[in-house]
Amino acid sequence: MLDYQALLDYIAEAVQPHFGKGKVANYIPALGRVPASKFGMAVQLASGESFTVGDAFEPFSIQSISKLFVLELVMSHFGDMVWTRVGKEPSGDRFNSLIKLEMEQGVPRNPFINPGALATLDLLMGLKGDTKHRIRNYLRFLAMNEAVDTDAAVMNSELAHSDLNRAMAHLMKSHGNIDQDVDTLLETYCYQCAMTMSCKDLALAGLPLATGGYSALHDAAVVSAAQAKRINAVMLTCGMYDSVGSFAYRVGVPAKSGVGGGILAVIPGKMSVAVWSPELDQFGNSYVGTAALEMFTSMTHSSIF
Amino acid sequence: MLDYQALLDYIAEAVQPHFGKGKVANYIPALGRVPASKFGMAVQLASGESFTVGDAFEPFSIQSISKLFVLELVMSHFGDMVWTRVGKEPSGDRFNSLIKLEMEQGVPRNPFINPGALATLDLLMGLKGDTKHRIRNYLRFLAMNEAVDTDAAVMNSELAHSDLNRAMAHLMKSHGNIDQDVDTLLETYCYQCAMTMSCKDLALAGLPLATGGYSALHDAAVVSAAQAKRINAVMLTCGMYDSVGSFAYRVGVPAKSGVGGGILAVIPGKMSVAVWSPELDQFGNSYVGTAALEMFTSMTHSSIF
Amino acid sequence: MLDYQALLDYIAEAVQPHFGKGKVANYIPALGRVPASKFGMAVQLASGESFTVGDAFEPFSIQSISKLFVLELVMSHFGDMVWTRVGKEPSGDRFNSLIKLEMEQGVPRNPFINPGALATLDLLMGLKGDTKHRIRNYLRFLAMNEAVDTDAAVMNSELAHSDLNRAMAHLMKSHGNIDQDVDTLLETYCYQCAMTMSCKDLALAGLPLATGGYSALHDAAVVSAAQAKRINAVMLTCGMYDSVGSFAYRVGVPAKSGVGGGILAVIPGKMSVAVWSPELDQFGNSYVGTAALEMFTSMTHSSIF
Amino acid sequence: MLDYQALLDYIAEAVQPHFGKGKVANYIPALGRVPASKFGMAVQLASGESFTVGDAFEPFSIQSISKLFVLELVMSHFGDMVWTRVGKEPSGDRFNSLIKLEMEQGVPRNPFINPGALATLDLLMGLKGDTKHRIRNYLRFLAMNEAVDTDAAVMNSELAHSDLNRAMAHLMKSHGNIDQDVDTLLETYCYQCAMTMSCKDLALAGLPLATGGYSALHDAAVVSAAQAKRINAVMLTCGMYDSVGSFAYRVGVPAKSGVGGGILAVIPGKMSVAVWSPELDQFGNSYVGTAALEMFTSMTHSSIF
Repeated sequence: MLDYQALLDYIAEAVQPHFGKGKVANYIPALGRVPASKFGMAVQLASGESFTVGDAFEPFSIQSISKLFVLELVMSHFGDMVWTRVGKEPSGDRFNSLIKLEMEQGVPRNPFINPGALATLDLLMGLKGDTKHRIRNYLRFLAMNEAVDTDAAVMNSELAHSDLNRAMAHLMKSHGNIDQDVDTLLETYCYQCAMTMSCKDLALAGLPLATGGYSALHDAAVVSAAQAKRINAVMLTCGMYDSVGSFAYRVGVPAKSGVGGGILAVIPGKMSVAVWSPELDQFGNSYVGTAALEMFTSMTHSSIF
Repeated sequence: MLDYQALLDYIAEAVQPHFGKGKVANYIPALGRVPASKFGMAVQLASGESFTVGDAFEPFSIQSISKLFVLELVMSHFGDMVWTRVGKEPSGDRFNSLIKLEMEQGVPRNPFINPGALATLDLLMGLKGDTKHRIRNYLRFLAMNEAVDTDAAVMNSELAHSDLNRAMAHLMKSHGNIDQDVDTLLETYCYQCAMTMSCKDLALAGLPLATGGYSALHDAAVVSAAQAKRINAVMLTCGMYDSVGSFAYRVGVPAKSGVGGGILAVIPGKMSVAVWSPELDQFGNSYVGTAALEMFTSMTHSSIF
Repeated sequence: MLDYQALLDYIAEAVQPHFGKGKVANYIPALGRVPASKFGMAVQLASGESFTVGDAFEPFSIQSISKLFVLELVMSHFGDMVWTRVGKEPSGDRFNSLIKLEMEQGVPRNPFINPGALATLDLLMGLKGDTKHRIRNYLRFLAMNEAVDTDAAVMNSELAHSDLNRAMAHLMKSHGNIDQDVDTLLETYCYQCAMTMSCKDLALAGLPLATGGYSALHDAAVVSAAQAKRINAVMLTCGMYDSVGSFAYRVGVPAKSGVGGGILAVIPGKMSVAVWSPELDQFGNSYVGTAALEMFTSMTHSSIF
Repeated sequence: MLDYQALLDYIAEAVQPHFGKGKVANYIPALGRVPASKFGMAVQLASGESFTVGDAFEPFSIQSISKLFVLELVMSHFGDMVWTRVGKEPSGDRFNSLIKLEMEQGVPRNPFINPGALATLDLLMGLKGDTKHRIRNYLRFLAMNEAVDTDAAVMNSELAHSDLNRAMAHLMKSHGNIDQDVDTLLETYCYQCAMTMSCKDLALAGLPLATGGYSALHDAAVVSAAQAKRINAVMLTCGMYDSVGSFAYRVGVPAKSGVGGGILAVIPGKMSVAVWSPELDQFGNSYVGTAALEMFTSMTHSSIF
């Protein structure tokens, strides 16, 4: 069997030349202050074994990776009904563009661009109970870590810089595709994006998607086997902002990234891998993290293609 | 081992209720005359075994599926240089839209939308020798069938209806992204699209992409193992016009479709599958063919997700 | 001298066949309840003489015509500085489209599309004092009518249907082109749009633009002579939503319309003309009102072309 | 009466500081070789009197100004039927953009953007006889100058750089909005654009539009009085590329410009004015020419607003 620990150690060394080529997200001060030199990686095998390297236990802002978990929650409650509110096609535009949203009558292209995540969350908020608690509890359960929580400073900072997301929410609401009050929706959305998790947390949280929706470790099915496959398909075609094609070409596995520098990748049938490095490429994906995953899938022959 | 023949027989029966829901392409008369009731399917295993059902030996117009084989040819000659002429991201627009092409300075989003296929072909035409012969010979080799040829009536009919493709070619040429004379380029493009192949031919032709670029049956490597993976990745994210997300969600394997009603699917490491049924859905993909492939990957558990 | 009264009487008769071809705005109930059969027209000559026909003294919702008066106020206080916040080119898109606004970094094309009116109002709100009072008092002064006021029911109804305008405001704010709080801005905007004035009021209010910015009747200059010319130019190229070209072609004078069915036209050097008829054409301009103005400028030879 | 000669002499002096701020068109070598320092201006009064200054008798490439004369020809033969092939609204995009053309099914926004001029010319070519001769003879008649002709070098150079225009023609043809063979259409279009005329020629040629379609000097009506008004209206709203609003704001009269540096302005009821200076602003309009016209209409109080 492959020596995953040695592989992670090798990768942590091999990615060093890639530092300094990206740019830490700075649209809110709280994210901009994270040191560019951070790097962590965690692998969670279906067998239960796990491996880590670097800053893999340090929590960071998961940002858009939260969209994946909220989609899971929504699909587990509403099934395919979610696709009446949001499409499952790549957008071909930036994650925060309003152009297609206007041209397509307020129906976002997929759940991983911002308006799609807002529509997905809006649906979840239709359930009884406190949506923030529901999301936090779900992430704690997935990560098997009761310490998982939101970072109030990041959340408030994002709320104060949420005009573009508000524009999307109001545009969708004008088309009848948002039910909730926009202020409440945005607050919940910033709450979800500001959740902090470590690579270790994320790798654990991603495991069920690699194992047919059911995880022996969690002793639970979070979604059905068919839903797990389908979420993976949506991740592969829509999960990496406007570079899904390049990512599929280079790395070759379903993944979801966040502007906090995290990427959660799913290797169907085998494992989940989380990586964190704050410098972003021009599309908003972790520069070093993508390189690390490319090495990982190449060396483990785990590209799905 | 799975009884593939029984499975194909079952699928040919099970898809019957899906006939009559799509529409045969009629933008040129030669395509519009094909009977809507045609259905064929062929499976080519890596082991060499193959299975067919229905009209699997009847040649039909491969249309855009030719883009896949031309991409292979170009990558085998020019490697990653092709990506200086065309991107590898989904477009989010129809396959024949000029909007993004104008906004992105004449660089098409990927090799599977029409302008991308034109740019790819343009690069191939830079090689010495007769490009039409090169393409025809390559398809004959892949299909192991010397009878593979273009349909001159279809080719001429398409040439006579090629204004939109000419518009794209001239727009790209105005940006310096087409080298060849546009008339010659268009004629060659229509030649390539008018090639006729059967499901059996296509399944054989697709095998190398399922087996790391090398095919024992062909006793040859058509592309490198890395190139095969990457072509599959581009197919999955860009191969099904503007419904790549839905196709990945439902079927879950890399595939390329054509408006002649054919779809060639690649199941990495295992097999290639070709299906033909002329009725198209609103995106230009075979309606019944998609349903048949969905049944196939579901029953064989061969979704890559 | 032309018998204006006879002309207005003639026009009121001649437009009868045009009723029933448009559609009363119904996006808010308060507007939808206005009888489609209303028709009024008022002419205010530079000499001080005025003429009216039909429902010319009945107040109606001026809606977007308010954008013209707010632009006057802003230009009188800020001069050409307004053009740092908003352009003066026709948009080529609908008045409520976000597409160009996103592509042009939150700078609206002109002050007469909704985002442009919001940016203009935002600038005005930077002045000390109550902006609502300032606008109301200005309209009362222009109309020489202390009864001019907002319709609270219309204002509140518009506020409750303001998602699209909110989307624009937030999009502009994300680009730094809105200073005020969006809620306050929208409330003031709905206040301005819900002002009710009669044709008689509007014709009087428009007179200064026809007479070099100064009006002997008002005994005041509301803008400079150069500013009056320029506002007229912006009206002609941008004042009639997405049919400025057709309106210039048919009617040939600067004008501003509102979805309440009013149109205020300025005939430079001579007079101002207001018309009201609630049925709208597909572009949101009064169907019968446009026909009436076409007759008027044709019979008085007052097209500026 | 105003001393027009003194005014032109003054303007020729006053524009000197504006030289060097624009850029001579260089997309074809023949245009790029014209000295940037050229400046000419000609005024043609309705009375028959005319005045000139500078290089007013030197022929230059009229380029897009030809669109105006071809529109006259088409309207005189086909009347309002032209509006079934082309709109009369400003486009809000660059003169050579394909985006709106695709979104609006191949119907160009107006006759003064390139696709609109192609559609207009296509209609004219439906008449029996040699279209090139028809255009040349019409311009000779309007300019009262048998020496008016096309510049074969410019024409051929433009033909060799016509990919973008070809793209538009093919896009329109794919929508059934071009009847002629695209090669012939393009050749005729380049012929029309390569006509050379002097300011003196152009001022004479523009006179009928200033005098109700009929010109005593020419002793002929080239279009009806209503058509003249309407052409002026289309010029004002669409004649200056993507800065019609700014031009109306600054200069305030209908005008058509060309990338050769010429502008022909019409002052309804009074006169026509032509100016030439090769440096262009960012929108493709003569930089110095616009400044000269702004001075002219300001000092003669001839803005139509």
